[in-house]
Amino acid sequence: MQPAGVMSGPIPENKDQSMSTYVKGLEGIIAAQTEMSFIDGQKGILEYVGIPIGELSEKSTFEETVFLLWNKRLPTQAELDKFTSDLRSRYKLPEGMPERIRSLPRTAQPMHVLRTQISALGMYDPDPNANLVEAAREKALNILGYTPTIVAEFDRMRRGLEVVPPDPSLSFAENFLYMLNGEKPTPTMARAFDICMILHADHGLNNSTFTARVIISTLSDVYSAITGAIGSLRGPLHGGANEGVMKMLNEIPSVDAVEDYILGKLERKEKVMGFGHRVYKTRDPRATALKSLAKQLASDTGNEELYIKSRRIEEVMEREVGAKGIYPNVDFYSATTYHCIGLKLDLFTPMFAMSRLGGWSGHIIEQLADNRLYRPKAEYIGPHNAPYVPIDQR
Amino acid sequence: MQPAGVMSGPIPENKDQSMSTYVKGLEGIIAAQTEMSFIDGQKGILEYVGIPIGELSEKSTFEETVFLLWNKRLPTQAELDKFTSDLRSRYKLPEGMPERIRSLPRTAQPMHVLRTQISALGMYDPDPNANLVEAAREKALNILGYTPTIVAEFDRMRRGLEVVPPDPSLSFAENFLYMLNGEKPTPTMARAFDICMILHADHGLNNSTFTARVIISTLSDVYSAITGAIGSLRGPLHGGANEGVMKMLNEIPSVDAVEDYILGKLERKEKVMGFGHRVYKTRDPRATALKSLAKQLASDTGNEELYIKSRRIEEVMEREVGAKGIYPNVDFYSATTYHCIGLKLDLFTPMFAMSRLGGWSGHIIEQLADNRLYRPKAEYIGPHNAPYVPIDQR
Repeated sequence: MQPAGVMSGPIPENKDQSMSTYVKGLEGIIAAQTEMSFIDGQKGILEYVGIPIGELSEKSTFEETVFLLWNKRLPTQAELDKFTSDLRSRYKLPEGMPERIRSLPRTAQPMHVLRTQISALGMYDPDPNANLVEAAREKALNILGYTPTIVAEFDRMRRGLEVVPPDPSLSFAENFLYMLNGEKPTPTMARAFDICMILHADHGLNNSTFTARVIISTLSDVYSAITGAIGSLRGPLHGGANEGVMKMLNEIPSVDAVEDYILGKLERKEKVMGFGHRVYKTRDPRATALKSLAKQLASDTGNEELYIKSRRIEEVMEREVGAKGIYPNVDFYSATTYHCIGLKLDLFTPMFAMSRLGGWSGHIIEQLADNRLYRPKAEYIGPHNAPYVPIDQR
Repeated sequence: MQPAGVMSGPIPENKDQSMSTYVKGLEGIIAAQTEMSFIDGQKGILEYVGIPIGELSEKSTFEETVFLLWNKRLPTQAELDKFTSDLRSRYKLPEGMPERIRSLPRTAQPMHVLRTQISALGMYDPDPNANLVEAAREKALNILGYTPTIVAEFDRMRRGLEVVPPDPSLSFAENFLYMLNGEKPTPTMARAFDICMILHADHGLNNSTFTARVIISTLSDVYSAITGAIGSLRGPLHGGANEGVMKMLNEIPSVDAVEDYILGKLERKEKVMGFGHRVYKTRDPRATALKSLAKQLASDTGNEELYIKSRRIEEVMEREVGAKGIYPNVDFYSATTYHCIGLKLDLFTPMFAMSRLGGWSGHIIEQLADNRLYRPKAEYIGPHNAPYVPIDQR
C-alpha cells in the first residue's frame, strides 16, 4: 500500500485505486504511446516519425506526410504514386451525397456540416463497423478523399454557385482550392496551402486526437471516432482558435492600435488568441514555419497590413509575456495565411480538420493495434446515503 | 524533483512533466469530479446524488431521475410536472427531420442513424454553439425528447410501417414503446422499460461520458459532445455489449448446452459477454435490479427458457470465475429484459443511449461549469533525428 496521493508505475488491474489523484484536464498524464509525432515543448521541437517539421514543410507534400504518419516511414516513388492515385480516386463523393449537401440549409456552419456528413457515411457503408487495420485504413482514406469535396461543395452551394467537380489530376491541396474557387490556384498559393496541411497533420495527444482514440477504444468504428474528433476540434480552445485570431485581427483597426488593444486585453486578463500552448513553453516550431509563409503570401496578395499587424502583436506580446513562455502558436500565423489564400473565416477550422484527418486516422490505427478501453474514474463529491424522500414530503 | 515514474498530487502548470507514467486505458486515473453518481466497485454500491440505485429503480421514474442528475436533488411535484411537460413538448421532431429519416437507407444501423441525426440537429439550430449552462440544458432537453422519436420513426420506416406520432400524454418510456409498436404498452412492460432507463442513466466516467466531457472541454457544443458519446457507446466494449449478450443467448441451443458452451469459452480464454466490469469487483447492483425484472418479464411473455438459460450461465460463471470477482454486469440481464419487451437486437444499444443521455448531458453541464481543456500527453516511442531522404534515394 502506498501513501495517499502517490501513484507509482502503471497500476495493475484489480488493485485498490482509491488513492489516486485528480489531475484536472489530465495535464501531464501520459495516455497513449505513439510512433507518429514527437514534441519537445521546452526546446520547441516537433518531428513526424523522427523528421523535423521544418524539413517536411520545406521538402515534403501533404500526401507524402500522410503516408509517413500511417506507415512510419517515407514512401518509395512507386508507393507514393499508388497512395496518391488511391487518394485521388476518392475525391468524388459517393452517390447521393452531393444531393444531400445541396439540400442543407445555407446557414449551417461548416464544422457542423462536416461532422454530420462524415457521420452519415456510416449509414451508407455496407460494413461500417469493420475494424481490422486494413478496413480501418480504407475507411480513413475514403474520409480523407471526400472531406475537401464536402467542404467545397457545401461552400459553393451556400454561395449560390455551381459545384466544381474534383479534378483527379490535381494534388490534394490544388484540387481543394480549385473546387472552392473554380480556378486553379497559383503554384505559390497551392504550395502555401500544402504546407499548412503538412504543419497541422499531427500533434501528439491533442484533444481531438485523444477523442478519436478514446472513442475507438470501445472497438467502435472509424466514422464514430472521426465524427467525435471533428466535434472536439470545433471548440474555440482547440481548432476553433484560428477563427478567433482572425476575428481579433479584424477587430484591431490599424497597426498603431495594436499596442493599446493588447495591453488592454492583458490588463483585463483576457486571452489573446493565438498565443500560448499547453505543450510549448517556447516558440511553436509550426508558427515559425508559418510566419515566413504568411509574410510572402501577404505581400503576394496585397495583405501587407494584416501581416504587419500580426508582427506588431507578436512584438508586444513578446515584450509583455514572452518571459512567461507565452509565444505565438500554430493558429496565430495560420489565420493570416488562410485569409491570404482567400478562405472565408468559417472555413479555417474545416481546413484544420482536413489536415488533422491524417493524424486522427493514424492514431485510430495505432489504438486498434494495441487497444485497451479508456475508462478513467470520476471522483464523487456529492452526498452519500441520501434517502428517497416521497414527493409529497419534499 | 521527484524520482522517475512517481507522480504526486495535482501537477502544477509549466512544470516539467517528463517524469509521469503511462497508464494504459487511464485505469485508476481520476479525470473528473462529479456530483452525480457514486460507485463503490468493491462493495457493489451505485448511488445517484447519494440515493441508492435500488431505491430509485423501485420508487422513482426516468423523468425524475434525470431531474435529479441535472439538479442534484429530487424535484417537488410542481418542478417534476414542469420538467415532464417540457420534455413531452419535445417528443415531436423538428420540421424536416421526419422526411430526412424517411429518406435513409433501410439497411443503416440504428446507432449510425442516431449519431448522424443528433449531429444534424446542429446544422438546423440557429445558435448551435451556445454553451452557457441554460442554453446547454435546453439543447440537452431537446435531444432527450427527440431521441426516442428518431429511433422509433427510423425503425417503423425500415419495417415498411407507418410512423406513429408521439403522444405527449404518455411518459418517456410509454411513449417510446407506443411509437415503436403502434400500441400502448402494458403497465408491467412500461414500468420494466422505465426501470431500464433509470438503471442506465449514469455511471461515473464510463467511456462515452468521458468522451462527452473531453469534447465539451474544448468549449465545443452539446451536439458535438453527444454525437461523440453516441459513437463511443456503439463499441462492443461499451454499450454494444448488450447486443453481444443476446447473440450469445441465441447461440446456445438449450439450457443443457450452457455448461459446455461456457466452459469452452473459458478454456479458449474468450470473453463471456455480460460478465466482468472494470469498476465492479463484486455484483453490479444494476444487474441485481435487472435480474428480478428479467425473471418477471420472461414469465409474463413466455420467454422462461431465455431466463433459465441466463440463470444457468450465471451459475456456471459463478462457480468457475466468481472467486476472481467476475460477475454479471448491467448488460447481462438487460439483454433478456429488452428481448422480452420485444426490442430488436440492434435497438438494444440505442436504448442504452436514450437512457445515458441523462448522464451525458449532466456531465456536459458539470464540465462547462468548471472547465479545463483535456490535453494529456503521448509518449513517443519512434525514432529521432531521422533525415528527410530524397525520394530517389529511398
